[in-house]
Amino acid sequence: MAEKLKYALGVDLGGTSIKLGILSNLGEILTKYSLPSNAELGPDEVIRQIKKGIRHILSQKKIKIRGIGIGAPGVINIEKGTVEYPPNFPGWGKVKLGKIIQKEFNFKTFIENDANAAAIGEYMFGAGKKYNSFIMITLGTGVGGGIIFNKKIFRGEFGAAGELGHMSIDYKGPKCKCGSFGCIEAFIGNNYLKQIVSSELKVHPDSKILELVNNEAGHVTPRIIQEAMEQGDKYAKSVVDNMGTQLGAVLTSVSNLLDISTFIIGGGVAGFGKPLFNKVQQTIVERVFIPTKKRVKVLPAKLKNDAGIKGASALVFHHK
Amino acid sequence: MAEKLKYALGVDLGGTSIKLGILSNLGEILTKYSLPSNAELGPDEVIRQIKKGIRHILSQKKIKIRGIGIGAPGVINIEKGTVEYPPNFPGWGKVKLGKIIQKEFNFKTFIENDANAAAIGEYMFGAGKKYNSFIMITLGTGVGGGIIFNKKIFRGEFGAAGELGHMSIDYKGPKCKCGSFGCIEAFIGNNYLKQIVSSELKVHPDSKILELVNNEAGHVTPRIIQEAMEQGDKYAKSVVDNMGTQLGAVLTSVSNLLDISTFIIGGGVAGFGKPLFNKVQQTIVERVFIPTKKRVKVLPAKLKNDAGIKGASALVFHHK
Repeated sequence: MAEKLKYALGVDLGGTSIKLGILSNLGEILTKYSLPSNAELGPDEVIRQIKKGIRHILSQKKIKIRGIGIGAPGVINIEKGTVEYPPNFPGWGKVKLGKIIQKEFNFKTFIENDANAAAIGEYMFGAGKKYNSFIMITLGTGVGGGIIFNKKIFRGEFGAAGELGHMSIDYKGPKCKCGSFGCIEAFIGNNYLKQIVSSELKVHPDSKILELVNNEAGHVTPRIIQEAMEQGDKYAKSVVDNMGTQLGAVLTSVSNLLDISTFIIGGGVAGFGKPLFNKVQQTIVERVFIPTKKRVKVLPAKLKNDAGIKGASALVFHHK
Repeated sequence: MAEKLKYALGVDLGGTSIKLGILSNLGEILTKYSLPSNAELGPDEVIRQIKKGIRHILSQKKIKIRGIGIGAPGVINIEKGTVEYPPNFPGWGKVKLGKIIQKEFNFKTFIENDANAAAIGEYMFGAGKKYNSFIMITLGTGVGGGIIFNKKIFRGEFGAAGELGHMSIDYKGPKCKCGSFGCIEAFIGNNYLKQIVSSELKVHPDSKILELVNNEAGHVTPRIIQEAMEQGDKYAKSVVDNMGTQLGAVLTSVSNLLDISTFIIGGGVAGFGKPLFNKVQQTIVERVFIPTKKRVKVLPAKLKNDAGIKGASALVFHHK
């Protein structure tokens, strides 16, 4: 029996751009659009840009939508619909973004932290479809996370749960910008990783990585490391192995604490692909409680470039 | 308006003894009893002992009880009422302890992991009464944990959640008996702590600890360390500070992951008292996300010697 399709508008609010799309409840994109967020000009301008984007996309595709979903950085208060202190958005305190948009367009509006929205997106449309509970990890400049437990986002007491990137794997480790020490982000977040690798290259002068960046150690990127690894570079391989061990170690702790054993990894650094995933899986299986070992699954995220708008629109469908 | 009191029978199953009590829904103990668990003789004998204990205590106090609550070690399957592979109970695979007791005595029987039962006990009768969500940590030979979220135990997918003791604070750290590395238990669990201290005493020959154990470093106990600290011993103080930092580090990770900021610490090692609690609190406040800092609370557990039977009877009252 073919169910009637439903539609929603998804808004992915980023520090650089706002991406928007109208999507079906099967995750199919009917139309999309993006515009600069102009975050440096403060919240009023950002809100203007969001409204402009929504107006534009609603005019592009005349179709009945069920609501608007917004994925935004920072701490989100679900009930109040506020976005609080999003990083890279100067001048924001608490902004009642949900209410503002709902009032303007008269569609029910759902707002959620972007990492949580990504997790809900994977749950509805991606690698998490078959699972009632999983941990979503997004690797990028930051290391983000979302906990899906019993088909729902686990938000904690004040909506800030899921900050997997700021679990420590070494309590005496390097200082993280969050104020703690040895957070997994301080090892495998893009910027930290680049720093670590460019410094370690001094003792690996033969590494292909240096060749690929014309001896400018400061130009190392995850993609360059990956390329060197694919060309058989041993040091590059050891970097990825190390990341896999570190990520596997933190996911072991998460699994022991929450008794959740499915992990979905997305984001740029996940581009390291099989070598990274295999090492993560191997580390968890080696370290986790015996009864959990056979259940451990480490899966790549399925939603790629459009993860943001898919996750945001999923907020509307997911909400019952 | 005085509400009518209700009563329940609590059973605390331990590797050495079985403790039983009849308690009111205010946590008041009407009568208690204990007998050896005879764990070394296998599950049939343990079950016989539990039945014997229940029969005895029911004959001691003729009062209408609402049910039987059992706190047991190992992984508990709540729905099936099974106790699976409890440590220190040779010969147990999965035992349907809940059903066996319910059938024998015809009282509704609730069974729960002992660490979770301790958390429910603190929630109903102890330090957690005022809180909807908190993390319970029990310090002893093992480091146990329980997560109360929104007034309920968070059990994870298969009932094994809350194993805080096996979160790693150093992914390259000492091997833990669980198979992982650098678990908090491998630093502050009683046996590990004793080993660490007795080995470190070699470089602290002037420590009062050595005096207190007549130079037998192998005889160090948490109580001895505490005594030395109270006598002004600097090394003993540094041991407790270290424990506080380590425990604070792991609780920071938990708080960042779950957005829960109240912690209740119980068990033997918690006897280190204020110096330990202050260091734990200070470490979390230093390390945790800024918005969480002002909410952090580290509280001593209130249920002491009778925590086990109180937690077990709370299972009956807590269940609605």
